Amino acid sequence: MEGMPVSMGGLRTLPWYVVGSQVLGVACVVITGVWMGHYHGGYAWDGSTQEFNVHPLCMVLGLVFLYGDAVLVYRVFRNETKRSVKILHALLHMMALIISIVGLVAVFDFHSAAKIPHMYSLHSWCGMLTFVLFFIQWLLGLGFFLFPWASARLRSWYLPLHIFFGLLLLAMSVGSCLLGITEKLLFNIMETYSRFTGEGVLANILGLLLVCFGVVVGYVVTREDFRRPPNPEEEALSVHFKTLS
Amino acid sequence: MEGMPVSMGGLRTLPWYVVGSQVLGVACVVITGVWMGHYHGGYAWDGSTQEFNVHPLCMVLGLVFLYGDAVLVYRVFRNETKRSVKILHALLHMMALIISIVGLVAVFDFHSAAKIPHMYSLHSWCGMLTFVLFFIQWLLGLGFFLFPWASARLRSWYLPLHIFFGLLLLAMSVGSCLLGITEKLLFNIMETYSRFTGEGVLANILGLLLVCFGVVVGYVVTREDFRRPPNPEEEALSVHFKTLS
Repeated sequence: MEGMPVSMGGLRTLPWYVVGSQVLGVACVVITGVWMGHYHGGYAWDGSTQEFNVHPLCMVLGLVFLYGDAVLVYRVFRNETKRSVKILHALLHMMALIISIVGLVAVFDFHSAAKIPHMYSLHSWCGMLTFVLFFIQWLLGLGFFLFPWASARLRSWYLPLHIFFGLLLLAMSVGSCLLGITEKLLFNIMETYSRFTGEGVLANILGLLLVCFGVVVGYVVTREDFRRPPNPEEEALSVHFKTLS
Repeated sequence: MEGMPVSMGGLRTLPWYVVGSQVLGVACVVITGVWMGHYHGGYAWDGSTQEFNVHPLCMVLGLVFLYGDAVLVYRVFRNETKRSVKILHALLHMMALIISIVGLVAVFDFHSAAKIPHMYSLHSWCGMLTFVLFFIQWLLGLGFFLFPWASARLRSWYLPLHIFFGLLLLAMSVGSCLLGITEKLLFNIMETYSRFTGEGVLANILGLLLVCFGVVVGYVVTREDFRRPPNPEEEALSVHFKTLS
């Protein structure tokens, strides 16, 4: 390390953080799948609780794991052209969007079939707010950055907001999942939750892993020496915290 | 605005964000107080549910409102000396620490008196993790920045981590409160929550206001043109996202 610029030394650790994030992300999806599959009877699309089970799996896969990976691409693909990385960023977010729509339809279907009112809980309010803001952010991202509709001035005005809301929405996604986990546990195992039963502990661990995934992604994206190397041509659209105008 | 540098134009809006954050923060504390006071019988210190009621009030006041304000002081007191602002930052965090310890004692007392096991829920895991990390961060902050124990190199290594974890802990505090709100509602009004009863809607609104407070504080602190004006003497300890070494 001695004599080596800090940024180079720091950069050597980037792959470990990226691998760590992927291990955490896959673990979250697998544990959600096992929780719903093993403890709640698996999956279906018939208005039953098995259709409800599609909801947590889709939200964790779409709005947490794929969303987080879409954010990470700017750090993982450091040397590819900005345009290619932007297309990948938009595609991953499109997958996240489609999968989370499936997850939302599943829970609305289940509520309708079981005659449970929609959108009464804090989880539903936070989750829907997250989804709507994510959809708006995705549309604005397409319009401002991927297609040449916006002027350079407009782009440079919107970029810091896009980054701020991008990280905020990751935090809100993780938070909404934690609220959903708490709701699911209290609806289903309120009597036994305080006895540290297997399902309760597994779901709590899932909650902590979701937080860890969000933390690692957030750290990688905000750490200064993990930023893409500056490129004069691309600079006007590069992703960092400085106001560019 | 025309002809005015963006940073100056942007800076004019800072007071509005600060006022907004304070309105939101006070609203959160007041609504928590009213929720516990009006719907749950007020406050006591006798192991009863009235002692439990001290818990949400202290956590929202300490780990959200005072914590958020401690983070904001670097933007609000832009022209005071860095040393004065650091002392205020540390004092506000000390008040947050003391008040949150009272809040933790209240819930542990209540659980012990009611023979409810401790630390079984996702809310308790996330909340305790937030508190422990906050306490460590506070100790490290004192040691690295307020007292002259650490070298300039160590300070500049720790500063970006202090900032990252500072914002992360604000998000985790808000998230833990939201989990607590969900728990409290499902333990107390599970049967009527889905009928949009007054208590449920009030608590949901409290959750959204907590999110809004965190978002405004996070936005003010991360927005580039709200940063303190650079001062060569203080630069080595200034608060921004760049790795300083």
